[in-house]
Amino acid sequence: MKFTMFNKGLLIVVSGPSGAGKGTICSAYIERNPHAILSVSVTTRKPRVGEKEGVNYFFRDRETFLRMVENGEFLEYAEVYGNYYGTPKKFVEEKLAAGRDVILEIDIQGALQVKERFPEAVFVFIIPPSMEELKRRIVKRGTEDAETIYRRFRSAYEELNYISRYNYVIINDTVESAVAKLEAIVLAEKCRVDRNKELYLELTGRG
Amino acid sequence: MKFTMFNKGLLIVVSGPSGAGKGTICSAYIERNPHAILSVSVTTRKPRVGEKEGVNYFFRDRETFLRMVENGEFLEYAEVYGNYYGTPKKFVEEKLAAGRDVILEIDIQGALQVKERFPEAVFVFIIPPSMEELKRRIVKRGTEDAETIYRRFRSAYEELNYISRYNYVIINDTVESAVAKLEAIVLAEKCRVDRNKELYLELTGRG
Repeated sequence: MKFTMFNKGLLIVVSGPSGAGKGTICSAYIERNPHAILSVSVTTRKPRVGEKEGVNYFFRDRETFLRMVENGEFLEYAEVYGNYYGTPKKFVEEKLAAGRDVILEIDIQGALQVKERFPEAVFVFIIPPSMEELKRRIVKRGTEDAETIYRRFRSAYEELNYISRYNYVIINDTVESAVAKLEAIVLAEKCRVDRNKELYLELTGRG
Repeated sequence: MKFTMFNKGLLIVVSGPSGAGKGTICSAYIERNPHAILSVSVTTRKPRVGEKEGVNYFFRDRETFLRMVENGEFLEYAEVYGNYYGTPKKFVEEKLAAGRDVILEIDIQGALQVKERFPEAVFVFIIPPSMEELKRRIVKRGTEDAETIYRRFRSAYEELNYISRYNYVIINDTVESAVAKLEAIVLAEKCRVDRNKELYLELTGRG
């Protein structure tokens, strides 16, 4: 009888301050690892042109969303500018059970919620190569006035404090190197003894 | 100012029952990652033809070895068939400080000693693809009689119980896949938040 390693999927929570480049890393990761998928959120906002149910989002009305909240169907959720967004537990769990890694790109508040409800996820904190680069990316991003930019930078700076709640940190110096690190983290996590309980029990004759 | 990740070397302890194929994996790893090195042991046994001081072993007399033991200069040591063998702490620490990863291929008793004296090492447990394969490798290895083979197999079987003391497990199905996993483990470990204390302090403004 052959020994087998952990063969379910992993939930990989990719988070960090805004301007760190999480989105770029996640897209590049999925492109290079097509058996992984991005988590699809539920939202109460209206679909935009070209957006598809179940691909970009699961579109639900407010009442349905709030019932899902009550039923504990979200790994995390938040209200942003009057619309709700949430990560459906069932979607994630089904993909994981089918052996697919699920990438959840999310802000820090969301990541902390996931950590409470799904502690076996892998928490990865992405940071820009330097403070100056973080500032530059925030400035570049929008047409906001100086005050908004300052507030965003302050907020990003404060968010850095949450690094201690994460398992891994990746400096986003180049996309290639950041993705290679994320790939290594996923592969290594699947080799962790504490994720290989079945193998462990088999080896120690208690299986 | 650029952020920098953990840039010292890691001590990677590669261990597991005899017959698991530790040696092959370590050699292949070093070949593919020449900036990593194998730890060089101190021994009291006589050099064999072609063996070089500081390359294969550090050859020391019994008195010197025992003084080193007393001075706490070993990460682990053992007596095997009347000769002493030990892993010199100083050698390992110098290489790590210079940024080189050190691979220590060692039996389980040795690994447990290292764990006590150097808990920041990464502990990797190598197992063969199946119980049958473990048996086959032990049988193939020598010209021993049935009883010796049986004893070896029993011992390997008992050693599997120590898996819980390790961080990672790798099934040695093919050398390529096992080495790729070891590489991922080393890269991932360097991204662990708790190994990046300096970066952490820098980010949270306490550096």
